[in-house]
Amino acid sequence: MGFWLQDNLTPNVGLNIKIRNTLFKEKSPYQRIEVYDSYEFGRMMLLDGVIMFTERDEFFYHEILAHIPLFTHNNPKRVLVIGGGDGGVVQQVLQHPNIERIDLVEIDRMVIDVSKEFFPRMSQGLEDERVNIAIEDGSVFLLDKKEDYDVIIIDSTDPVQGKPSGNLYESDFFKRCSRALNDAGVMVSQVGSPLYSSDLIMTVFRDLKETFPIAKPFLGYVPTYSNGYYLFAFCSKKNDPADDTVLKRIEQSQMEGRYYNKDIHVSAFSLPNFIKEMVDTIE
Amino acid sequence: MGFWLQDNLTPNVGLNIKIRNTLFKEKSPYQRIEVYDSYEFGRMMLLDGVIMFTERDEFFYHEILAHIPLFTHNNPKRVLVIGGGDGGVVQQVLQHPNIERIDLVEIDRMVIDVSKEFFPRMSQGLEDERVNIAIEDGSVFLLDKKEDYDVIIIDSTDPVQGKPSGNLYESDFFKRCSRALNDAGVMVSQVGSPLYSSDLIMTVFRDLKETFPIAKPFLGYVPTYSNGYYLFAFCSKKNDPADDTVLKRIEQSQMEGRYYNKDIHVSAFSLPNFIKEMVDTIE
Repeated sequence: MGFWLQDNLTPNVGLNIKIRNTLFKEKSPYQRIEVYDSYEFGRMMLLDGVIMFTERDEFFYHEILAHIPLFTHNNPKRVLVIGGGDGGVVQQVLQHPNIERIDLVEIDRMVIDVSKEFFPRMSQGLEDERVNIAIEDGSVFLLDKKEDYDVIIIDSTDPVQGKPSGNLYESDFFKRCSRALNDAGVMVSQVGSPLYSSDLIMTVFRDLKETFPIAKPFLGYVPTYSNGYYLFAFCSKKNDPADDTVLKRIEQSQMEGRYYNKDIHVSAFSLPNFIKEMVDTIE
Repeated sequence: MGFWLQDNLTPNVGLNIKIRNTLFKEKSPYQRIEVYDSYEFGRMMLLDGVIMFTERDEFFYHEILAHIPLFTHNNPKRVLVIGGGDGGVVQQVLQHPNIERIDLVEIDRMVIDVSKEFFPRMSQGLEDERVNIAIEDGSVFLLDKKEDYDVIIIDSTDPVQGKPSGNLYESDFFKRCSRALNDAGVMVSQVGSPLYSSDLIMTVFRDLKETFPIAKPFLGYVPTYSNGYYLFAFCSKKNDPADDTVLKRIEQSQMEGRYYNKDIHVSAFSLPNFIKEMVDTIE
């Protein structure tokens, strides 16, 4: 019983997951949203045919995306999440004890509604009173922001021209992020597959290095993304993720993730030679 | 044109790769051997329907499997490879300047012949005069070996009862490996997927910890294996892969891999919490 669903990583490579049931399938003004119940990964959400997260493996992605910037900042209180309407990143951000306010800017209200309905545990942080939700284009939201945030987390879909996330990978957007961060500010963004998206990675890092004093790639393992290997960007005005104070902070924290820990924090910045060569060519 | 080939990672998850051409398909006395030409990964070999390697991503697996033990040993001269008839590990071992002899013990002659025909570049090390090939069961080969080797590398298929690699994951086999290593000896083995094979991982490490003073899991990224994430075993009589002397040796080496470097060596032993918990329960 059931059927196979194929998520095309490239036109010639697919991840196939056996589905028990289709739970939701609708077009929002921005994208096609689907929710399935799978045998191996539990429930999962797809946007325009691409797996965004599954119940079983969302922690890999959300832990690394939230905890790397939050532990690198010495005392994060105000956080902006762009995208991430599923609540997965917010849930991890809320593990940090000093958080005072999280602004979540999601362009597609339907992503939030569907997450609340089908992923109540993962999205429960969206109900926290410190979380303020704006249904808006993240790039527009940032227009009047200045030194408002300690940490910005970009949790968007992959950039495709004409799709909602397209402008979240542009030089102007990165400059707005930089202006919206205070002087100890830290930003992270998902970028793409080091196997299949080297052009995108190089373009993004060229722009980030122009905008931020510190801009470094880091790697995370996410089983249902792009053969499991995913590249992110870490940017900051002065904080270095490899500082001893950062590592001490992680060690002293009581937080217990399933993926993230001090060793994972360090090793995320350990790049294979083929990725080093890709990024080192950028001035 | 072409067709999709599905490699089932579990009965409910598959990696699908688009194939341009079937190059070889035959049953040996031990297993079904197939070679395809794929659009994204170039040529690839399957044993009993499971991808063993592809031209594009073999370096991830072969570099980590060879260089972690060889750099951990202070002066490896005699190496035993069990399995690995494709020559991919041997090619990496030969990068180390002091190698005097490599014994390759492959049970299935057809794997060697097919590799030489369809993967001439990867398998060329098999022609090196320091390489001695035995067509034999690795477990039997080891019966009369005592302190013969500096390094043993187990590059087998996943263990399935009744298949050729089945006895390469048993306690008796590990004891024979230990006896075949000299007192500074190091052994590595591929083990399995941390996502799907936690029972196997725990059984194997229970046995390894009984046999070797040092037995540690390490992780490698291999795009076409098990959602990209793969767990290996490092065992030794006294050498620790995290020693400063080991890291210095890697730094001073002139070797240029595409995946492996000092940072990758260190981070391979950085385990996510969910894997730590799996392995730490073993006494």
